[in-house]
Amino acid sequence: MTIDMTMTANNSAAMKAALLDYVAAFNAADAERVAALFADDATIEDPVGSPAIAGREAILGFYRHATSLGARLEVVVPPRGSHGNAAALSFAVYARMQGHSVRIDVTDVMTFGADGRITGMRAFWGPDDVHPQ
Amino acid sequence: MTIDMTMTANNSAAMKAALLDYVAAFNAADAERVAALFADDATIEDPVGSPAIAGREAILGFYRHATSLGARLEVVVPPRGSHGNAAALSFAVYARMQGHSVRIDVTDVMTFGADGRITGMRAFWGPDDVHPQ
Repeated sequence: MTIDMTMTANNSAAMKAALLDYVAAFNAADAERVAALFADDATIEDPVGSPAIAGREAILGFYRHATSLGARLEVVVPPRGSHGNAAALSFAVYARMQGHSVRIDVTDVMTFGADGRITGMRAFWGPDDVHPQ
Repeated sequence: MTIDMTMTANNSAAMKAALLDYVAAFNAADAERVAALFADDATIEDPVGSPAIAGREAILGFYRHATSLGARLEVVVPPRGSHGNAAALSFAVYARMQGHSVRIDVTDVMTFGADGRITGMRAFWGPDDVHPQ
């Protein structure tokens, strides 16, 4: 899908579509396409509790690194919208960490600007959400 | 389970246990037990995008109403922790709304204080997350 930049931020269905587009772009290992979903001054806190990164270059670098590792995202339940400008997506990340295959259980919460782009992403996963496969 | 008030807020496993205790207390229709999981000045935004409520009496009233409706929560994927003081839980709410049986797909994000109690709850669900059953 393509994000319609005229969509309103409180459009729950549009936010969900953007979340699923995020997953598709990530799984295509297309860091530029992932980064283009974000606003120029967006922030990423991944995992929650770590220092946030901000801005287009940092975000592009983050996804260039992440997609270069061969990680794959698998959506496990339908995305949740809201009555505001935020939505949530729960998924599993299948990746290699330190030579081992792992599954990381994650819930992302994303906030959206009026133009439909992501203004903030927070990834909920703890040390105990990393499972050997 | 019983919340250990000495647990540290950034204990991912303890936050997850509290989330599951929340579900158990809700499904027991025990509003007092649910409310006791919250800090005295906690806030609830349910759904995200609606005005928040705050404080023990408001929270107790919220759960007295919610549990009186016969709603039941069903956890659909394991809770997600973090490296900070917040965790996320995705579940389905089975309830009656305006005479109809519905399933509402929800993700709750909860923040925790140093004493292990919930300081904030935000429930992500949109108009399009309410499904007739």
